[in-house]
Amino acid sequence: MSHGEPKRHHVVIVGSGFGGLFAARALKRADVDVTIISKVTHHLFQPLLYQVATGVLSTGEVAPATREILSRQRNVQVLLGNVTDIDLDQKLVVATTPMGLITKSYDSLIIAAGANQSYFGNEAFSEHAPGLKSIDDALELRGRIFGAFEMAELVDDPAVVEQLLTFVVVGAGPTGVEMAGQIAELSRRTLRKDFRHIDPRMARILLVDAAPTVLGGFGDRLSSYAERQLIKIGVEVKLNAAVVGVDAEGVDLRMANGEIERIESICKMWAAGVSGSPLGRLIAERSGAEIDRVGRVKVEPDCSIAGHSNVFVVGDLMALDNLPGVAQVAMQGGRHVAKLIKKRAKGKDVSADFEYWDKGSMATISRFRAVASVGRLRFSGFFAWILWLVIHLLYLIGFKNRITTLLHWVVSFFGRGRSERAGTVQQVLGRTALKRIQTDEWNLPNTKKD
Amino acid sequence: MSHGEPKRHHVVIVGSGFGGLFAARALKRADVDVTIISKVTHHLFQPLLYQVATGVLSTGEVAPATREILSRQRNVQVLLGNVTDIDLDQKLVVATTPMGLITKSYDSLIIAAGANQSYFGNEAFSEHAPGLKSIDDALELRGRIFGAFEMAELVDDPAVVEQLLTFVVVGAGPTGVEMAGQIAELSRRTLRKDFRHIDPRMARILLVDAAPTVLGGFGDRLSSYAERQLIKIGVEVKLNAAVVGVDAEGVDLRMANGEIERIESICKMWAAGVSGSPLGRLIAERSGAEIDRVGRVKVEPDCSIAGHSNVFVVGDLMALDNLPGVAQVAMQGGRHVAKLIKKRAKGKDVSADFEYWDKGSMATISRFRAVASVGRLRFSGFFAWILWLVIHLLYLIGFKNRITTLLHWVVSFFGRGRSERAGTVQQVLGRTALKRIQTDEWNLPNTKKD
Repeated sequence: MSHGEPKRHHVVIVGSGFGGLFAARALKRADVDVTIISKVTHHLFQPLLYQVATGVLSTGEVAPATREILSRQRNVQVLLGNVTDIDLDQKLVVATTPMGLITKSYDSLIIAAGANQSYFGNEAFSEHAPGLKSIDDALELRGRIFGAFEMAELVDDPAVVEQLLTFVVVGAGPTGVEMAGQIAELSRRTLRKDFRHIDPRMARILLVDAAPTVLGGFGDRLSSYAERQLIKIGVEVKLNAAVVGVDAEGVDLRMANGEIERIESICKMWAAGVSGSPLGRLIAERSGAEIDRVGRVKVEPDCSIAGHSNVFVVGDLMALDNLPGVAQVAMQGGRHVAKLIKKRAKGKDVSADFEYWDKGSMATISRFRAVASVGRLRFSGFFAWILWLVIHLLYLIGFKNRITTLLHWVVSFFGRGRSERAGTVQQVLGRTALKRIQTDEWNLPNTKKD
Repeated sequence: MSHGEPKRHHVVIVGSGFGGLFAARALKRADVDVTIISKVTHHLFQPLLYQVATGVLSTGEVAPATREILSRQRNVQVLLGNVTDIDLDQKLVVATTPMGLITKSYDSLIIAAGANQSYFGNEAFSEHAPGLKSIDDALELRGRIFGAFEMAELVDDPAVVEQLLTFVVVGAGPTGVEMAGQIAELSRRTLRKDFRHIDPRMARILLVDAAPTVLGGFGDRLSSYAERQLIKIGVEVKLNAAVVGVDAEGVDLRMANGEIERIESICKMWAAGVSGSPLGRLIAERSGAEIDRVGRVKVEPDCSIAGHSNVFVVGDLMALDNLPGVAQVAMQGGRHVAKLIKKRAKGKDVSADFEYWDKGSMATISRFRAVASVGRLRFSGFFAWILWLVIHLLYLIGFKNRITTLLHWVVSFFGRGRSERAGTVQQVLGRTALKRIQTDEWNLPNTKKD
C-alpha cells in the first residue's frame, strides 16, 4: 500500500537517532516533504542510556516520542517501520511495518540507521553479555543488575553470592567506563542499606579491555586519571585482557602473558565494539559502495554514495575520514546533507564537502568526576563533571525532560536514590542470567499470565 | 535452603502492596523480625497505575523498590519470591524464588497477596483485553494504546483505521472511568498534532458496563455528573451492556433489549472485576476458612483466620463486612494486624476487631474534573479534582516521587505532553493485538535480537 505520493521533493529518512532527527529538523523551512521511517517510535538520547540501565533515569527522559518532538513541523511524517530493501534505480524504499509492507518513493534518501553492538564474530556472547544500544537493552541490563543483588540476597552459598555480585563490563570506552562507575556507585552507595543478608559493598566490578588503556581516545593524561578514579571508587580495571569466552556462568580472559583467567560472574555487559546496521551491507550490495571493517558504508566527501548523489549515509553507519561514531558526527552530518537537499530542491546543483567540527568528547566516571577533551584542552575532575552535566542537559530534547532529568540527578548525586528501579516480572525473572525459573512458572495455576 | 532462623518473634508478610507495606512499617518499633516475601521487587501505587498505562508517569514514580522504602527499618528483610505453599501446623511458608525453593518459619503470618483481574469465567478474554493490575499490565496497555495510533497512521483502508482508533474500556468503576478519560485526553489533546495521515481526534472511546450507572458506588448525583463529563470529553458511555465476547478484532455486547451489538476494535482493556489471589484458595483449603464468590478469604473480626489466631489476611484478599478492595482498607488492615502482633510479641494476649474508617472515595474523570465522596459529602468538578490531586500526592511514597509526579502532572495537565511514551520494540510490536509481525522479524538477518 502507499499513501498519495507528495508532489514536492520528497526526502525519506531512515532512522530517528541523532542523524535522522537533526536532518529532519534542518529541513523545517525547506520546500520538501519529509518521511522518517524508524524501527522505534522514539528518538534515543544514547549518551544517557547507561543511566536508564542503572536506574537513574526513566525511559521517557532519554527517549521522547519522535512524532512528539516533530509535531509542530508540518512537513514531516513519522512512520513506524523497518526498512528491508532499497531500490536505487526506481528510487523506492521498502519497509516492513506492523500493518504489512509499505513502499515509499523518494527524491532524496538519508540513511541514518546507526550501528549495533558487535561481538567480533562471537555473536553467541550476546545472550550472556547484552550490549547497550537500545531501550530494550537498557531495561534488560537494569533487570540483570538489580536482579543479581535480589538473587544474592536469597542464597547462603558464599561462592554463589560472590558469582552473583561479580559484574563484568567488557570494553573500557566511555560507555564501559560509565557503566562500571555507575555499578560501583550502586553497590557502594545506593544499595548500601537495602539488604540484610548480603553486603552490596562486597560487589566486585571488573572493567575489562584488550587495549592497554581506558578511554583510549582521550590521551594519556586523561586515561590514567580515569583509571585512577575508577580504582578509587572500587572498580577493578583489567587491561591487556582479551575476552575469549562468555557463558552463563562467567567470562574467560586471555591475559597479556597468554594465560587464561576465568571470572565467575552472572551479570556481564558488552560495550566493546559496534558494527554498522545491516542496512549498510544492503546499500553496499545495491550500489557497489564499499563497506569498511565494521560494516560502515564508505561515502563521498559530501556524505553521498558514489554514483548516487541523492542518497546519503550519515551517523554511525557512515565511514568518512575515520570520524568516530558519536552523537556530534551524526548531528552535524544530518544537518549537512539537509542543507544540500534544501538547496537542490530549489533547483541549485550544489555540492559541498562535510566538514566536521570536533567539539570534543567527555565521559563521566563517578558523580563529581569526569574527563573532557576539547580541542587541545584536557579537563578532569569536578570541573569536567560540571561541563558534562551542563552540556548533556543542554542537548537533551525538550524542556520538561531537562527539568525531570536534573531533578533525578540531584536525587541520585546528592541523595542515595535511584528512582527508576521498577522492573516488570519479565525483566526481573524471565531473562535474568540464571533462568532458574521462567516467568510462566511465577504464577500459580489459574492466575492470569502477565 | 534457609537462613539462620531469627530468635525473635518472626512475622512473615506475603505481598508488598498497601497491606503488606503498611503492616511492615507499623512493626518498625516492635520487638519482632519481619520478612516480606513478594513476587515483585516494588511497592505498587495502584491508584495511579492508569497514568503509567497512558504515558503520564514513569514506572519508577508509581513503583519504588520495596527494599528502598524500608532500607532504614533494620528489622525488615525483603525477599523476591512467589509463595506457593503454607503449612499452618508447622508454621512454615514455602516460596519459589529465582534461586530455588525457600522455606521460612513464622510466628505470625500476614497474607496480603491482593487480587487479580477477573474475567468472570471467560479467561480467554484476557489475551485480547488486558487488565490493569501490575506494572507489566500497564506497559502492555501503554504499548497497545500508542501502538494503535502508530498502526492507524500506516493504513489507508478507512474501516481498518476506524477499528484501530476504536478503544473499548470494559467496566465503569474508577479504573475504567479514569482509563477512558485518559484515552480521550490522549486523542483529543496530547496526540492532536502528532500525526499526518490520521486525525487522532476521530478516535472512538467506549466505556462499557453491564450495570445501569457509571461509578456505581458513588451515588446518583456523582454517577450522573461523571457520565455527563465523560460524554463531554468524547467518551461514549454504554450502560446496561454486557460483554459476551472478546476477540482480536472486537467485542460483542448484549444490550438491554437482548440484541447483540458488535464493536470492531483492536485495543480493548478490562477493568470489570477482580478475584482474590490464588493464595486465598490455598489458605482456605489448608485452614478450612471459607472463600467468597470472588475468591477472597473470610476472616474473623480481627482479620485472623478461624482457628489460627496468628494468621491474618488483609487487603484485597480479605473478605470482611463487605469492605471494598481499595487502598485504605489494605493500609488500615495492615496497620491493625501489626498492632495486634506487636502487643502479642510482648506477651499480651489481646484481640481487637478491625474497625475501618472510611475516608471516602474519589475518581478523576479528566483534568480539572473529578468526583469525591467523603462521609455524607459529595464533591464534583474542579474542587474534587484538587482534592484528588493533593491526596494522591500526599499518599505517594517518597519525597522525590512526589516532586517528579507533580512535575509530570503540570506538564500533562497544562501542557499537552506525555513524557513517558517510550516503548520497547517488544511492547510496540511483539504483543500488539494485531500481531501481524513478530519481534524476531523486526531485525534483518545477522542483527542482534533484542
